[in-house]
Amino acid sequence: MTSSKTLDPYCSVARSLGVLGDRWMFLILREAFGGATRFAEFHSALGIARDVLADRLATLVEYGVMTKEPYQEPGQRSRDAYLLTDAGRDLRVVLGSLQQWGDTYLPRPGGPTIVRRTHRGDRPVHVAFVDDRGRELDPDDVVAHRTDQYPVRDG
Amino acid sequence: MTSSKTLDPYCSVARSLGVLGDRWMFLILREAFGGATRFAEFHSALGIARDVLADRLATLVEYGVMTKEPYQEPGQRSRDAYLLTDAGRDLRVVLGSLQQWGDTYLPRPGGPTIVRRTHRGDRPVHVAFVDDRGRELDPDDVVAHRTDQYPVRDG
Repeated sequence: MTSSKTLDPYCSVARSLGVLGDRWMFLILREAFGGATRFAEFHSALGIARDVLADRLATLVEYGVMTKEPYQEPGQRSRDAYLLTDAGRDLRVVLGSLQQWGDTYLPRPGGPTIVRRTHRGDRPVHVAFVDDRGRELDPDDVVAHRTDQYPVRDG
Repeated sequence: MTSSKTLDPYCSVARSLGVLGDRWMFLILREAFGGATRFAEFHSALGIARDVLADRLATLVEYGVMTKEPYQEPGQRSRDAYLLTDAGRDLRVVLGSLQQWGDTYLPRPGGPTIVRRTHRGDRPVHVAFVDDRGRELDPDDVVAHRTDQYPVRDG
């Protein structure tokens, strides 16, 4: 049902989006972070077509974002649960950055439906660039450098 | 050419992706962060169909991510340059988080093509959750809370 994708050989943004670059992917992940593990849970939460959901879950498994583990309820056939891997859990900050941008620039009238706080200390949380000492940076102090791996453009 | 989109009334991740949720959008933004402003620059860098590029740029302008400013070169007709707004520049951290995830979990054999460093101090940079004091957080210390605006699910 799923075929391996050809990922961009140079750009990590394009490589990430080669796997995740579809609204459903992020919405499936949102539900997974909210605790969903079962096909039926994703299906009912998102109103997504079953074949599309099956395809997207297979891609997430193929690229190591989720693992499939069988479970069986009494009197039912065995089914698969979809669990986030470490790679999947590391997408929290990606979803956090998308949520933060939407809350800021596409705000809804009543305010956010979800807010992030620290467990210890109950402090407000946001997503930002930080340095290797764990200190938040002014985005204007962040410079993107091309490495020697950067492709040379012809023409 | 572009029609206004219906954005998800509840979820900011879905709202952001309602505007940005297409691989081309992120790749157009990547070029814009790299300095591209002209239709022809985006077109030649991305190999994107002209009508698709025109549609995506119009959407970015409609939602305040870019502004259009006319420019004219000698002997040429007036054309539009596409410039990032503050909202557009704030997407740096979103692209940074996607890039970081790709570099980590979908690495290319030769290593990253782009690295981020601080301008002052030349320190390595990453994207993370931080608290209101600008201190990096352990992602496991970050909890998502539903506000009173969160929709009640029926059924």
